[in-house]
Amino acid sequence: MTITEVSIPERPRAAYRVCIGDAILPAIIPELQRDWPGLRLFAVTDASLRDHGHLAALVGDHGIDSFVIDPPGEVSKTLRTVEAILTALETRRYGRDSLLIALGGGTVGDIVGFAAALFKRGVPCVQAPTTTVAQADSALGGKVGVDSGLSKNAYGAFHHPARVYMDCGTLRTLDERHFRAGLAESVKHAMIADAAFFGYLEANLNRILAREAAVLEELGARNCRIKGAVVFQDPEEAGLRRILNFGHTIGHAVESASGYRLLHGESVAIGIVGACLLGESLGLTPPGIRQRAAALFGRLGLPVAIPKGIPESVLLDAMARDKKAKGQTPRFVVLEALGRVCPAGGHYVVEVRPEMLHTVLTVLAGDGGLAIENGELSI
Amino acid sequence: MTITEVSIPERPRAAYRVCIGDAILPAIIPELQRDWPGLRLFAVTDASLRDHGHLAALVGDHGIDSFVIDPPGEVSKTLRTVEAILTALETRRYGRDSLLIALGGGTVGDIVGFAAALFKRGVPCVQAPTTTVAQADSALGGKVGVDSGLSKNAYGAFHHPARVYMDCGTLRTLDERHFRAGLAESVKHAMIADAAFFGYLEANLNRILAREAAVLEELGARNCRIKGAVVFQDPEEAGLRRILNFGHTIGHAVESASGYRLLHGESVAIGIVGACLLGESLGLTPPGIRQRAAALFGRLGLPVAIPKGIPESVLLDAMARDKKAKGQTPRFVVLEALGRVCPAGGHYVVEVRPEMLHTVLTVLAGDGGLAIENGELSI
Repeated sequence: MTITEVSIPERPRAAYRVCIGDAILPAIIPELQRDWPGLRLFAVTDASLRDHGHLAALVGDHGIDSFVIDPPGEVSKTLRTVEAILTALETRRYGRDSLLIALGGGTVGDIVGFAAALFKRGVPCVQAPTTTVAQADSALGGKVGVDSGLSKNAYGAFHHPARVYMDCGTLRTLDERHFRAGLAESVKHAMIADAAFFGYLEANLNRILAREAAVLEELGARNCRIKGAVVFQDPEEAGLRRILNFGHTIGHAVESASGYRLLHGESVAIGIVGACLLGESLGLTPPGIRQRAAALFGRLGLPVAIPKGIPESVLLDAMARDKKAKGQTPRFVVLEALGRVCPAGGHYVVEVRPEMLHTVLTVLAGDGGLAIENGELSI
Repeated sequence: MTITEVSIPERPRAAYRVCIGDAILPAIIPELQRDWPGLRLFAVTDASLRDHGHLAALVGDHGIDSFVIDPPGEVSKTLRTVEAILTALETRRYGRDSLLIALGGGTVGDIVGFAAALFKRGVPCVQAPTTTVAQADSALGGKVGVDSGLSKNAYGAFHHPARVYMDCGTLRTLDERHFRAGLAESVKHAMIADAAFFGYLEANLNRILAREAAVLEELGARNCRIKGAVVFQDPEEAGLRRILNFGHTIGHAVESASGYRLLHGESVAIGIVGACLLGESLGLTPPGIRQRAAALFGRLGLPVAIPKGIPESVLLDAMARDKKAKGQTPRFVVLEALGRVCPAGGHYVVEVRPEMLHTVLTVLAGDGGLAIENGELSI
């Protein structure tokens, strides 16, 4: 037998720019054309953002091809939609010299980033996030992908954006429910990494809810610094990056079990309270943090309890499929202080005995006034 | 406006092992279980390899789950097949702790490697190539992907294998046509990088065609060294790696235009002769090389002319979609000597005027006795 070896070279350190400002959409394409003159630009957005005029603001009279995801939302976050975008690119004879622009929320960014990762084995993608959840979280860090019939983000890739443009002005056309839900990711960042930022959120919540440009820009910049630092230390989630999943094990399960009637941020708010309860049960999370988080979520109008009508078995099943699961045992990120995650020997996740998980899910269920009845979310 | 930056850390140099030997399939799973005890193994092959008993030889009595691609061949190299594999993994509750084994030819390796790249944003994949084309070429280097309706390998990723096992014994069950066609990739390696290897092929062709174990092992090791060195210098085809596409611009176009009735290696043989003609027309490739290549292909029973019945317009259209194309202008790898590619200022590809391409395609067409008639390949 002959044994030989093939080497994979190192990849040097790199960086991408994040530009945050108000009404910056019209400046994006001229800047991209200046910085990457050899590339053909292709914009993708969804029907809702097109109807709000944001696609027109981006494209202007630059004659850029575009694709509109319709219907908007999680229902379109499938391999089918990715394939439709790829087919559109091929039909219009785009090649490796393509640059995709993802204009939209987390769903659009995940779909388009994934399409860019797959097209001709990878073309650059510029993220232009337009929602609180995408500006705080999903547009940064390179995680892209789609849902399967069985689980969220089941198929995906790591594909870092070539650049990120956060236009805070786009947040003003976001409906109140989505605007508020997305702020749960900012709360998450504060809780896992920056207690002072948590104080900032408490102190400035009214100005955030009034969507003041200066505060939204500051919010974007702070989220970016927190997430950027974590992703730099662990780009492909070998350990530390798991802390960004704080609140997401239960959160994803609730979101999926609600048939996506609960928004991602709403589900994460519930998941964060659940993760605090788990941390307290394990004796790792000090008391008081959960109450402060719940109070902030209360001011945001976000739920902090699992809606009635979701059986625990469905949640447990979803958690067993969670990407952090080991075998089929779910693992959870818990806090050891406000602004600090329990390192758990470098794993940053802990396993929880089934009885304890059962108790926490019981406490977390049914006292929040929400219910799923006849397939609809009611309050 | 706030401008900040997110850093992407370096990725250190890595390596994977390539094990080449005779009848080594039964040793693979025990070795993987020893080296990666935490991972759940999942084998994927195609119906033809299963019917030849290779899946049974691999799996033994180790109780490993498996998936069989049916029908075998390029027709199954689609996103649909990848999705079927991913669904099988999810249904059986595989998670990030999965390791996929791709047992088969280039098609199986490309499909399974791509599925592994996408599942939970990437799980390891072990390649166990069973054909001359896969052992020489496709199992190494990390290029994975599937065809679209419009072009070959349109969607894909770079996903380096965790390990490669080349069982030369599996080559003995390969039908004569596929066995011979796959050797075109060895000829290609010799022509772009190793004139001495070209001499080895000329001298040992009869022993190779007799499928002598020792010669097949030597063949695998030499291919591995050539391809490994190229891939290490340019893993994601920024320049040098393009030399591996020698013969493939015309080759892919002919393969696709024949409706995949011509095999990949057969198409590459035609493409290599075409690339020599182009190189000669440009005054870059010395005379004589084409004749030596054509003589070797002749001994291999491989075609060296474009089959009748394929319109030039269809070939030009396919070449305009080639991944090396710039805009819609195809680019070609040409030789400056036997064993050495024309560096072309570090691009390793040259553009060719349409009239010259027309002339070469005309010379290359119709004198080889092959024809596509009524949708069938005839000789």
